[in-house]
Amino acid sequence: MLNFSYWNPTRINFGKGTMAEVGKEAAKWGKKVLFHFGGGSIKKNGVYDTVTASLKAAGLEITYLGGVVPNPHLSLVREGIEICKKEHIDLVLAVGGGSVIDSAKAIAFGAKLPPSEDVWYDFYMKASPVVRDALPIGVVLTIPAAGSESSTGTVVTDAEHGLKRAVNSETIVPKFAVMDPETNYTLPAYQTACGATDILAHLQERYFTTVEHNDLSDRLIEACMRNIITNAPLALEHPNDYRYRAELMWTGTIAHNNLLDRGRIGDWATHDIEHELSALYDIAHGAGLAIMFPAWMKYVYKVDIDRFVQWAVRVWDVSLPLSDKEGIVLEGIKRLEAFYKRIGMPTRLSDLKIGKDKLRFMAENSLVGERTHLGNFMKLYADDVEKIYNLAL
Amino acid sequence: MLNFSYWNPTRINFGKGTMAEVGKEAAKWGKKVLFHFGGGSIKKNGVYDTVTASLKAAGLEITYLGGVVPNPHLSLVREGIEICKKEHIDLVLAVGGGSVIDSAKAIAFGAKLPPSEDVWYDFYMKASPVVRDALPIGVVLTIPAAGSESSTGTVVTDAEHGLKRAVNSETIVPKFAVMDPETNYTLPAYQTACGATDILAHLQERYFTTVEHNDLSDRLIEACMRNIITNAPLALEHPNDYRYRAELMWTGTIAHNNLLDRGRIGDWATHDIEHELSALYDIAHGAGLAIMFPAWMKYVYKVDIDRFVQWAVRVWDVSLPLSDKEGIVLEGIKRLEAFYKRIGMPTRLSDLKIGKDKLRFMAENSLVGERTHLGNFMKLYADDVEKIYNLAL
Repeated sequence: MLNFSYWNPTRINFGKGTMAEVGKEAAKWGKKVLFHFGGGSIKKNGVYDTVTASLKAAGLEITYLGGVVPNPHLSLVREGIEICKKEHIDLVLAVGGGSVIDSAKAIAFGAKLPPSEDVWYDFYMKASPVVRDALPIGVVLTIPAAGSESSTGTVVTDAEHGLKRAVNSETIVPKFAVMDPETNYTLPAYQTACGATDILAHLQERYFTTVEHNDLSDRLIEACMRNIITNAPLALEHPNDYRYRAELMWTGTIAHNNLLDRGRIGDWATHDIEHELSALYDIAHGAGLAIMFPAWMKYVYKVDIDRFVQWAVRVWDVSLPLSDKEGIVLEGIKRLEAFYKRIGMPTRLSDLKIGKDKLRFMAENSLVGERTHLGNFMKLYADDVEKIYNLAL
Repeated sequence: MLNFSYWNPTRINFGKGTMAEVGKEAAKWGKKVLFHFGGGSIKKNGVYDTVTASLKAAGLEITYLGGVVPNPHLSLVREGIEICKKEHIDLVLAVGGGSVIDSAKAIAFGAKLPPSEDVWYDFYMKASPVVRDALPIGVVLTIPAAGSESSTGTVVTDAEHGLKRAVNSETIVPKFAVMDPETNYTLPAYQTACGATDILAHLQERYFTTVEHNDLSDRLIEACMRNIITNAPLALEHPNDYRYRAELMWTGTIAHNNLLDRGRIGDWATHDIEHELSALYDIAHGAGLAIMFPAWMKYVYKVDIDRFVQWAVRVWDVSLPLSDKEGIVLEGIKRLEAFYKRIGMPTRLSDLKIGKDKLRFMAENSLVGERTHLGNFMKLYADDVEKIYNLAL
């Protein structure tokens, strides 16, 4: 176990009807709120009206900024930063899923930058940027997936140049997150499945580490994995059943609030490999992860086969003889693929009609900027990344 | 799953050598520190000197208050409150285990009370007191057990009247906790075992709930239980092995930082039943828990036998036919008792030479004050508590 620091101060208000109380939490952070959201779904399912009413009842002034798309765009972030500066916004409230929250985080720290610094070139395009200050961020979570509601991370896309990049900082951890699983009843099945896949991916990225003797984290991650594997198919079969929606939503937060990777170093190559896919083809992040994770696993498992055996046995109940380690691992990967298929995810690039032509370009693009390699479990260079894309064809 | 709020802002600095950095954390909270500790062990193992040097290097003024005993006394709490008021203390730093931290929490909120309110009668002796304010609390944890380093709770004993009572409040959650597993190498085996038993008890109190459909918490608690069961005997066999000490220490924090009981209601009767024992006989809290938990389980399991079956199967790997539910549960309890014995804990009152004579007195005493009953899984009254003591003879 490595030395670590753990700090996660987001206040979570979870459950039925909690959304109507968001005004009270928001009012702790000032008077003027930027209400940041995506498309029309929150207008259709009542979230927009409920949150607006709650903020107004708490005496807050609201400026709306909608239009966040999946793989949120830098251009809207720049617009939000200008609004915050001009309107003297006190709190950035993200109402939506991971894309809206990630965009809100970029706006919140961008609004505090001096004119000499640029939110994109001086932060997202740097290897280890230090975010010094940010407006407080609040969240009304409507899509369980990204875990961004209490995480340090934000991922933004420069659509013009096809670049998708992340920033991580304690400074942008949201102050509060309101989570009502009932808001998920209207989520389309495909989006529910993409969310579950993203949650499972956050767990897998943390699980596959070369740091040894980190048993508690192993077991906690396995617990979360099993919970997603159990509840995701049930949430799809019974979309209006609170029980399964609540399990997915709470697991999504725990999977990504940094509790589960204390004392170890996660991998994260598959996220980077997927980011190239979704930046170029504008596919859902979850779908890209379902395609790339089995391919990554097949490429790297020999680096530490015992870790993959532990995963296959403890998470997927593979019970082949321990002498057949390779057989155990490959069976585990097959069960993961079968799970993805059961919840309606693609598992090959060809399922999304993506061919060979851009694989080399994406592999090289994944290393543009200050990156020297991808991943930690096994360090990957452009040739490795290209081979992994080929395994996913 | 019930609605819940979750907030745990303690900053944890965990690992080798972290203790030498405590001055930096402490300096964020003011200039004058009350260094609160127990007996001579921290002077022998170097903790006292290391922490003192770190605080001084950060330019802090130190007032020492030692003498905390297991089941910390109200009398020392009152002394600490007077010192804080007189010396205008900014931060109460607990250097030790759960007793020291609990005493520090009492001092921290007691120091903020107006003369019209008493720390004991208006708080510990009330059913649901509201703590409005407290001095900031920091921790250097040297004994993993109580989980008090990032919990809302404090337990104090009025030795004069033989009463041991708890207060819970977000206001007294420590601001930071420094946790170096190497400080545990010198812990006596019995104290290590008592700590592991206390951690396991915190998990058991949370696990046995009548709230249904709280799967993630079930699985996370099971993960922590299995980690204690695996690592506690190894830490006893290899007291200077960092790996096992680190697992116990980190699990102790997670077991009691309120993450694991969101959306459910824990039981806590066994803690209350044990508090009477340790208040009267001054035995170690962990030893009392090892005696009382199997007895409590035998008395209550029929309230929800399926929950006990799940525990026996998932935590203790009991694999009798599911038709024999009672057999599964009783086998699970036997394995728990065998675990306690393996790590050197008593499992019967007679192991500590405690007889029948005070059982009725303790059962009635457990309900003195504003309490109407003990526990939530099954509501227990004086007659029930007496029967449970009898089962533990």
